[in-house]
Amino acid sequence: MRCMTTPDNAPGTADTAADTSAEHTGVSAQDWAQASVDPQYRAAVVDLLGALAYGELAAFERLAEDAKLAPTLADKAELAKMASAEFHHFEQLRDRLAAIGAEPTEAMEPFVAALDGFHRQTAPSDWLEGLVKAYVGDSIASDFYREVAARLDSDTRALVLAVLDDTGHASFAVEKVRAAIDADPRVGGRLALWARRLMGEALSQSQRVVADRDALSTMLVGGVADGFDLAEVGRMFSRITEAHTKRMAALGLAA
Amino acid sequence: MRCMTTPDNAPGTADTAADTSAEHTGVSAQDWAQASVDPQYRAAVVDLLGALAYGELAAFERLAEDAKLAPTLADKAELAKMASAEFHHFEQLRDRLAAIGAEPTEAMEPFVAALDGFHRQTAPSDWLEGLVKAYVGDSIASDFYREVAARLDSDTRALVLAVLDDTGHASFAVEKVRAAIDADPRVGGRLALWARRLMGEALSQSQRVVADRDALSTMLVGGVADGFDLAEVGRMFSRITEAHTKRMAALGLAA
Repeated sequence: MRCMTTPDNAPGTADTAADTSAEHTGVSAQDWAQASVDPQYRAAVVDLLGALAYGELAAFERLAEDAKLAPTLADKAELAKMASAEFHHFEQLRDRLAAIGAEPTEAMEPFVAALDGFHRQTAPSDWLEGLVKAYVGDSIASDFYREVAARLDSDTRALVLAVLDDTGHASFAVEKVRAAIDADPRVGGRLALWARRLMGEALSQSQRVVADRDALSTMLVGGVADGFDLAEVGRMFSRITEAHTKRMAALGLAA
Repeated sequence: MRCMTTPDNAPGTADTAADTSAEHTGVSAQDWAQASVDPQYRAAVVDLLGALAYGELAAFERLAEDAKLAPTLADKAELAKMASAEFHHFEQLRDRLAAIGAEPTEAMEPFVAALDGFHRQTAPSDWLEGLVKAYVGDSIASDFYREVAARLDSDTRALVLAVLDDTGHASFAVEKVRAAIDADPRVGGRLALWARRLMGEALSQSQRVVADRDALSTMLVGGVADGFDLAEVGRMFSRITEAHTKRMAALGLAA
């Protein structure tokens, strides 16, 4: 379900995504050995893997925390399973960082404040809020990394797409949230507000990261070596927001 | 380290353990197909696997929770790894329950109150208390299940011993706690009190379980079909307490 609504498949945004990746036939046709000769590209990938690695570790913690709110033992086990899957993604990213000669902890550090800030500002107050958060958070992260994947060398791209593999969370969350709204339609209004707050907080933290990390931001907007195009970053955020709106509508929530 | 101090290896207790298992050459020489013909044995094994499965799920949650207290990203990743290992043990136990025709959730339910009670009464207030708790809790659980393993059919025994495989927590905790005591010896006094409280709470919750679950208790004390010998349960608890005391001394904590 998530895949069908990501920006690169959505009809209205497909052109933009294709245009952007077409500019980078250079790097995306190379493997890591070739592409990493450029120190700025190398720094951007270390940033990207560091952000993704800490994101997975934070997702592990968030899901394990949500498991405590689970109404049944079966739900608890389901969330623990997803948490464990996120941890194994973390391991792959950490091992990759080490393999390319980067210190994993150092690579993650720059992203701790933004991700922890996001989670602190959006602590779910119940099980359904936790599920919506996990679904929205996973989907946004997935959209973002798929946008980025097109600009990566073949080795890094394969890893990024592998760890974005659906952990089964999306369909689990969608099913539970739909059932709750069917049972009590007022729940939908509350969760719609919650999803809007999550998106706002995610955008605000992402912009903070983009502003702080030059090499990463430059890569995100197409590798212009002498700075980055803020308008292009804005367009990427628009595409992600649009995909979010469609997903929320499909879930029965007005975004 | 843990293995060398378990009761069945300690010189003073080896005779008792050997005597007890000698009485049960019958069941322990059988496989599950043979042993499970006895409905009381079957019920006891479902109880045992249910208790162990929920214990692993609760350990997953506890370790994930402790990961939040970790002073460094590397420590956090280490705890997340252990949590994930506990989750995989949970999966094996749940799958085994399903394979022998038991509903995993129903098998776990009777042990939720005691395990949740234990964790609620002993929420660590900092990183070191969390480590000591994980170490003490793992060790006691491991001693207990090793005592029980001798009375099990060969198939169930193999599974129980497999999931008790050290997740690396013991040596990690021992190393960190020793370093903290070396740096500030006063920490040792505080943690010794904490370890004593943990042991007291563990014993009190275990006795609650033993009193509630007839089939399980009967198996624990040697399969006497018409009730169980409270004195023998007491001796088992003594052996476990004794092993705990030795471990605490080795850790630099007076128990």
